[in-house]
Amino acid sequence: MSRSRQGSIVSYRPDIKVLDCTLRDGGLVNNFYFTDEFVKDLYLTNLKAGIDYMEFGYKASQEIFDPNKFGKWKFCREQDIRSIVGDNKTDMKISVMADVGRTDYKKDIPNRKDSVVDMIRVATYINTIPAAIEMLEDAKNKGYETTVNIMAVSKVNDQDLESGLELLAQSSADIIYVVDSFGAFYPEQMERLCYKYLDIAAKYNKKLGIHAHNNQQLAFANTIEALSLGVSYLDATVSGMGRGAGNCYMELLLGFLRNPRYNKVAVMNFVEKHIRKLKEEGAVWGYDIPYLLTGILNTHPSSAIRFIQENRTDYAMFYQELIDNAL
Amino acid sequence: MSRSRQGSIVSYRPDIKVLDCTLRDGGLVNNFYFTDEFVKDLYLTNLKAGIDYMEFGYKASQEIFDPNKFGKWKFCREQDIRSIVGDNKTDMKISVMADVGRTDYKKDIPNRKDSVVDMIRVATYINTIPAAIEMLEDAKNKGYETTVNIMAVSKVNDQDLESGLELLAQSSADIIYVVDSFGAFYPEQMERLCYKYLDIAAKYNKKLGIHAHNNQQLAFANTIEALSLGVSYLDATVSGMGRGAGNCYMELLLGFLRNPRYNKVAVMNFVEKHIRKLKEEGAVWGYDIPYLLTGILNTHPSSAIRFIQENRTDYAMFYQELIDNAL
Repeated sequence: MSRSRQGSIVSYRPDIKVLDCTLRDGGLVNNFYFTDEFVKDLYLTNLKAGIDYMEFGYKASQEIFDPNKFGKWKFCREQDIRSIVGDNKTDMKISVMADVGRTDYKKDIPNRKDSVVDMIRVATYINTIPAAIEMLEDAKNKGYETTVNIMAVSKVNDQDLESGLELLAQSSADIIYVVDSFGAFYPEQMERLCYKYLDIAAKYNKKLGIHAHNNQQLAFANTIEALSLGVSYLDATVSGMGRGAGNCYMELLLGFLRNPRYNKVAVMNFVEKHIRKLKEEGAVWGYDIPYLLTGILNTHPSSAIRFIQENRTDYAMFYQELIDNAL
Repeated sequence: MSRSRQGSIVSYRPDIKVLDCTLRDGGLVNNFYFTDEFVKDLYLTNLKAGIDYMEFGYKASQEIFDPNKFGKWKFCREQDIRSIVGDNKTDMKISVMADVGRTDYKKDIPNRKDSVVDMIRVATYINTIPAAIEMLEDAKNKGYETTVNIMAVSKVNDQDLESGLELLAQSSADIIYVVDSFGAFYPEQMERLCYKYLDIAAKYNKKLGIHAHNNQQLAFANTIEALSLGVSYLDATVSGMGRGAGNCYMELLLGFLRNPRYNKVAVMNFVEKHIRKLKEEGAVWGYDIPYLLTGILNTHPSSAIRFIQENRTDYAMFYQELIDNAL
């Protein structure tokens, strides 16, 4: 793998794919209670915008999570997706995510020929990679495209990460994602991380993806950094909607990409109709000082989410609490 | 000039200097009507935070701009600065900015020995560089440190830019600023631009600075990109306060820098006390779709500021208007 920028800013790389995970990561903001109108409009928007993959949500276990306490996109039942997309006779593919240990994938994920879903995305921590590989093999045997995210790699030492990547590279995963779960990485660090993934991807002929968080207003910067180095699957959400500081903004990403298939105006129209309303109704996400602090300290945003929910503004005290608990 | 990253993320470079331009760029949001309490608290905050330079505002001509229509920091009279800082017996230096053609610098800028101001920052367009050089020589002769910003370089062709930089490099300017006036540059482009400035800076023994805008949520990313390449004077504002999409957030920048002289908590305390209040009272700045669009189209944010002031949300129509007018 040559260590240089791939492509130029004026042209485009046909290997680039954009994945909209607004419902999935955004669902963590509102417990997946999206209106059908929102979901249908987002689907139509993504078609117009040229999005390559739309993620509808999680395949969460209904044994573990009470279906009465979450919107339907936490579970992504086949009939619920079909109520939006019909048979999805389009060239946009559909993905769902399944977390290791929180899914009854053997039972809840049908064969691909019986589903409108095209891709299963598996999320794992470093210590559950063997379980993730079982899920990936199950999905591959059922006929799906597969991706795998190793979460929280900013807390994993280099040797363990390399061992984990080797295991995943030998699995049926089609695409391995570089994930900055805590919004902790600066672009220089993202560059080093990407080269580690790119070396393994080249060796085993895998593709790579990037999923970034906006704790330090770097989700977009890290996404285009990764893409310029050769990463090709790019996650983004409308207006960055996602847990805590949120994700890479789809508007920014489509503004950057030069492939004429992408249409940022469609996404802006969706923002105008739906996102302002969602925020006015009380959904809260996006860069804020508490997320900056959890990002700097390389820790989960849950305490920052609580801080904001409690309408606290004593940032200095919160920082001390984080240092006491996190380091 | 070697083309590689300078320093590492774990250590720090002692040549780095941080300049707070909240009053100056932020003054463009509220016509410089800051309360004395705000300005005094910001001064004390910057002292605690280890900021190297604090910019109080502009040295604008009172012949051109009616002092009854702007707060006092548009003019930065000596007695107004002294009412905040006394004789400024601290190690934080004070700067003011003067725009070519909008200042009576010969009359309004006293000798440095009669002033608490340490540095005069000259802002110019490519076509007024000879006038900027006259101002720089005047300031240098009066005893000041000097910087020069060439604004709107994203609209200047390479040959003109190189000619302009050569002229400035032969002037008395101590520091030449790389400025992304329209928030149009991606980090890859910022890298190329910085190398152009770095080559000339090395040849003439000048230092470089960076002043970024947040139209594409890249002000912080571009600032640390420039710094990692060897740029050493870093502009930022509290919570990114500045015209349109605003600037690099001081909180993010101090979170990144490893020099123990910098204290981000002091800035967070200022945000808690003053910035939320300022926003609640109606001051508007920060990333939004209209600024993304002017950034992408490499044009001045004035039309986007108007769009937002008029409470418009028809982004698609605005984009068409921009294309009609800007290209």
